Amino acid sequence: MIIIMNAHATNDQIETVIKKAEELALTVQVNTGSNQVVLGLIGDTRNLQDVAFKIYEGVEDVVRITNTYKLTSREFHPDDTVVDVDGVKIGDGSFVTMAGPCSIEGLDQIRECAAIAKKGGATILRGGAFKPRTSPYAFQGLEEEGLRYIRQAADEYGMKVITEVMDEAHIDMVAAYSDILQIGARNMQNFKLLSAVGKTGKPIGLKRGISGTISEWLNAAEYIAVEGKSPIIFIERGIRTYETATRNTFDLSAVPLMKKLSHFPIIVDPSHGTGVWDLVPPMARAGVASGADGMIVEIHPDPKNAWSDGAQSLNEKTYMNMMQEVDILVDAMQQIKQLER
Amino acid sequence: MIIIMNAHATNDQIETVIKKAEELALTVQVNTGSNQVVLGLIGDTRNLQDVAFKIYEGVEDVVRITNTYKLTSREFHPDDTVVDVDGVKIGDGSFVTMAGPCSIEGLDQIRECAAIAKKGGATILRGGAFKPRTSPYAFQGLEEEGLRYIRQAADEYGMKVITEVMDEAHIDMVAAYSDILQIGARNMQNFKLLSAVGKTGKPIGLKRGISGTISEWLNAAEYIAVEGKSPIIFIERGIRTYETATRNTFDLSAVPLMKKLSHFPIIVDPSHGTGVWDLVPPMARAGVASGADGMIVEIHPDPKNAWSDGAQSLNEKTYMNMMQEVDILVDAMQQIKQLER
Amino acid sequence: MIIIMNAHATNDQIETVIKKAEELALTVQVNTGSNQVVLGLIGDTRNLQDVAFKIYEGVEDVVRITNTYKLTSREFHPDDTVVDVDGVKIGDGSFVTMAGPCSIEGLDQIRECAAIAKKGGATILRGGAFKPRTSPYAFQGLEEEGLRYIRQAADEYGMKVITEVMDEAHIDMVAAYSDILQIGARNMQNFKLLSAVGKTGKPIGLKRGISGTISEWLNAAEYIAVEGKSPIIFIERGIRTYETATRNTFDLSAVPLMKKLSHFPIIVDPSHGTGVWDLVPPMARAGVASGADGMIVEIHPDPKNAWSDGAQSLNEKTYMNMMQEVDILVDAMQQIKQLER
Amino acid sequence: MIIIMNAHATNDQIETVIKKAEELALTVQVNTGSNQVVLGLIGDTRNLQDVAFKIYEGVEDVVRITNTYKLTSREFHPDDTVVDVDGVKIGDGSFVTMAGPCSIEGLDQIRECAAIAKKGGATILRGGAFKPRTSPYAFQGLEEEGLRYIRQAADEYGMKVITEVMDEAHIDMVAAYSDILQIGARNMQNFKLLSAVGKTGKPIGLKRGISGTISEWLNAAEYIAVEGKSPIIFIERGIRTYETATRNTFDLSAVPLMKKLSHFPIIVDPSHGTGVWDLVPPMARAGVASGADGMIVEIHPDPKNAWSDGAQSLNEKTYMNMMQEVDILVDAMQQIKQLER
Repeated sequence: MIIIMNAHATNDQIETVIKKAEELALTVQVNTGSNQVVLGLIGDTRNLQDVAFKIYEGVEDVVRITNTYKLTSREFHPDDTVVDVDGVKIGDGSFVTMAGPCSIEGLDQIRECAAIAKKGGATILRGGAFKPRTSPYAFQGLEEEGLRYIRQAADEYGMKVITEVMDEAHIDMVAAYSDILQIGARNMQNFKLLSAVGKTGKPIGLKRGISGTISEWLNAAEYIAVEGKSPIIFIERGIRTYETATRNTFDLSAVPLMKKLSHFPIIVDPSHGTGVWDLVPPMARAGVASGADGMIVEIHPDPKNAWSDGAQSLNEKTYMNMMQEVDILVDAMQQIKQLER
Repeated sequence: MIIIMNAHATNDQIETVIKKAEELALTVQVNTGSNQVVLGLIGDTRNLQDVAFKIYEGVEDVVRITNTYKLTSREFHPDDTVVDVDGVKIGDGSFVTMAGPCSIEGLDQIRECAAIAKKGGATILRGGAFKPRTSPYAFQGLEEEGLRYIRQAADEYGMKVITEVMDEAHIDMVAAYSDILQIGARNMQNFKLLSAVGKTGKPIGLKRGISGTISEWLNAAEYIAVEGKSPIIFIERGIRTYETATRNTFDLSAVPLMKKLSHFPIIVDPSHGTGVWDLVPPMARAGVASGADGMIVEIHPDPKNAWSDGAQSLNEKTYMNMMQEVDILVDAMQQIKQLER
Repeated sequence: MIIIMNAHATNDQIETVIKKAEELALTVQVNTGSNQVVLGLIGDTRNLQDVAFKIYEGVEDVVRITNTYKLTSREFHPDDTVVDVDGVKIGDGSFVTMAGPCSIEGLDQIRECAAIAKKGGATILRGGAFKPRTSPYAFQGLEEEGLRYIRQAADEYGMKVITEVMDEAHIDMVAAYSDILQIGARNMQNFKLLSAVGKTGKPIGLKRGISGTISEWLNAAEYIAVEGKSPIIFIERGIRTYETATRNTFDLSAVPLMKKLSHFPIIVDPSHGTGVWDLVPPMARAGVASGADGMIVEIHPDPKNAWSDGAQSLNEKTYMNMMQEVDILVDAMQQIKQLER
Repeated sequence: MIIIMNAHATNDQIETVIKKAEELALTVQVNTGSNQVVLGLIGDTRNLQDVAFKIYEGVEDVVRITNTYKLTSREFHPDDTVVDVDGVKIGDGSFVTMAGPCSIEGLDQIRECAAIAKKGGATILRGGAFKPRTSPYAFQGLEEEGLRYIRQAADEYGMKVITEVMDEAHIDMVAAYSDILQIGARNMQNFKLLSAVGKTGKPIGLKRGISGTISEWLNAAEYIAVEGKSPIIFIERGIRTYETATRNTFDLSAVPLMKKLSHFPIIVDPSHGTGVWDLVPPMARAGVASGADGMIVEIHPDPKNAWSDGAQSLNEKTYMNMMQEVDILVDAMQQIKQLER
């Protein structure tokens, strides 16, 4: 941490800051320039975020130079972490597709979805049994019944399951049926929930918050990582901006940026990222090209009659077409990875 | 709900939409214009948000004309709701101040805060015992010990208590010590938590989400309201925008807007709204003038040594000065309310 | 400017940065800590914003500690600047009201507006003769004809004129009729226009850009200030955010913040700040209480038939009511300024 | 335009709205439902954006169903427009690369850039001679001298030129040297400038505004299109959001969305889109995969000594590597376009 004293800071003011830092068991480097003193605070400043050096008299600015997350950082763990979902590897250089409906509506519907998803090449089945809905009057999910259906459908087609868990009380139930526990965008900073899922040992699919910063997202992952058991899969799903032509603004730059900052894999969600079904295939392609480790997309045998998110769901035909395109781009990315330089 | 068919829509396409609406037990008004058909869907369309009419062939646009919230709306309840916090009224035309530290740090600290708060005219003591922190390494609160301290300090000074509850598991504990349960910004759409606090019967202080829209905020309140027991106090605390000169962008227009749309009272939080202590007094004044029913502010006997949020906390002197100003403006607002027109 | 080298930076890398800084005629303070070197660059770093120290090998972070604006800063000019608009003072502790229609529609309309504006206490008449419109098919303003009308109406009622100038080619024409030249939100960073109006010697009403940061706004003012002739009046008019319930998000915190950072006066525009007529009076009140030096509001004798911005315009009755409230708050603010502490 | 009257609207209120619409030469369809009247306004409502139907008594909502732009829309011109830049085609299914420095710094520098750009496959040379800079103290460009240099360098390497024009006064000068006139992000709504460049007949590279919506961008293009001479090339360059980890948030969804709404080609600018050089190659790849017609990127022979934007500029090696990757993805996209379905 660097503390920049202003040009008019008195010796007393400088001493007060130094004393405070030393009380906190930090070593202080004093750099006396011709017109300004700069203090370098050495030591474990991770927990210093709460000290309001900024309001000390004579302080001009305070600059943090150490991140507040650690286990999640690539600095701490230089190699890519490969998440093994009961045999399906995420982050090993392949491109994994998770597909399925927004909501599980019944056994037949989720079985149909699994059949389509599998046919296109998806290996993981998605589907919500607990749905976070803006309005209390909207459909809230089939709950445990839905979990049973998705497990059965996935098993029938040799797929893995990802589904959302919305509160601590249901973690055990969801974990009994699902291979990956998904934390939804609205819960990215539900810190109690993060700690709790981190104790399960299941891989956690951590969606970026509706207006989550890159730094907050990494810190949210740290809540899971400090529990020491569950690997994390980041899911970029678009952020809230002023633009209303799309449901969210799909921030694909997050893919290479997160791969630079963290060792955990990242996948993209072009369905929520755009909110419009015919923008999903081009954004799925762009996701592959950005270097993502996979994607999660919404499909439905009959989007017009979907109970939720019909507008952004692909039907069998549009999904199959998209997967053909994705396959071509995955091959192109393999060529790129083999370029010798 | 209005469905606008495009100019080239075929009769079959129009029939398909009508049939779907009728399946949903809605009455359909067909309006055949010279170049375009417009359908009016009559009936309870509250749960229709999930029907993706937008992707039906021939549909140009879909316009919802009914809100998805009801009990929270002023339409449903034209008179102001006055929340009675064990004798302290919020929403009755007075201006209520809640003051206290960000974190409860110990019995002495919270007692000192209560003394200052009371002296300036605050009637409700704030202070966090469970703290939602971006990083898992930051101070997380004194938990039950903190709750005991704030209750004791409030009782000593004849004040009421508001404090945050972060998860379902701690609701009973927090409710045992606190007069108002606060839902923090990160939990505005933690729907399970909303439903659970709605069952307590305690008044709920519902902070606006970090990037919560007015509509989402009203719908979040509806999750509480449908439980039928707890009145709501909205807390505007600033929203996330591109501007970094302040911690948040304090959206004071939300005050008159929420009062127009809902019957529940609304208070403002200029501390989080700005994040900078010397912007707090002018924004507190602006809050009074905007028509808010009260405010919640952070104070600390020694902000430089506060364990959290020191940069936005007022000390005794700056708080007392602010309260003098606020009192003058509260009087001015009383004059305004008595204008005959 | 502070350059923080990372822990693994080599001596060569450090030398390279130092050499570059010295080439730029800066003095370099080298601070060698136990695990990291920090360089302080002393000298005029104002024009250093273009040097990409961040991409030098071994550099961890670069921190600018000097603003890029100067003449606009309060540091440079500690006392408030009072702008004298041909006798009407802005920034002298009074609260100035500018009122009038969005567009000048004809002589009668602007005369009616002037009569109403004056009656409520406004001393400056606003009205657009050149209108920046999103669509080329929308009404673009009466141009010089409009300018003649507003000048005539203002003169008749003993008022001053503020009106927008949209391009360099019309500066002389607008300056011939108007007392204040307004730069619209879309032109806040039209740097050629800023330089050109800065040469006129007329006071410049500089609106904050649609998504202008505080820092960009101050730098935009600096483009005017460096010309050395025209004083500036900042106009906060709301910023673009994700919220759509209001036309813009009215950022009233900008008022005390700009007064801290700059010596030029700042007024507020609650009409554009909210976009909804019945939110204008409460936000005008909040503007007074925030410490603004005045406000600019849209009024129209018949908002329903206004050629533009009818939805946010006050009619005579609502304007007169608002001004009554504003007067009460202006008195209250005078009391606050006289508090002895 | 659809006007939804509220359930309590009186006949008089409804008549008032109808009368107003008829005054505007519109045909009104009245749709009387069981609890609500809906009015359909038929005719040319393009210029109706200024009528404040929303404030008429009894009106609940107003819905515009016609865009305010026309010539720019795909509806008006279903086939792709191919822009021919003196032989280089943009929008014909190929992927065009424009490369060069942020600022033209001298003849040698721009010649070096041209050599590198050409070697990697770029056919158009970019470089700024007039620079829009936040601060008046930053380097503002070499102006006409720079224009001469870039023209000479481009000619030497058989390339075309794109460069920015910042004000009407310099259009003729810039047009004398450049093949494409670029309108910068800060000028997207400088309507006078748009109209003026639209008269030149040169292709216009129209950058999306810093916080420009899709709709505003299309309307800005319409200002150019109505002049009837210049074709447009849209340039997505990222938008302003709360996220600060990247310079802007690169909105790649805009690519397929703009191609759906407009017939003009769209290219991407990953340099400004991200602001960080090592995020440029993955985002260039994603741009290809999203379906863009080309890209514009910043390169510099020596980014560390670049006069501006060094942090986001590629050097020869990183540029050549990126172009290898881009070529592979362009081939993959050709395969995708040839899929038979």
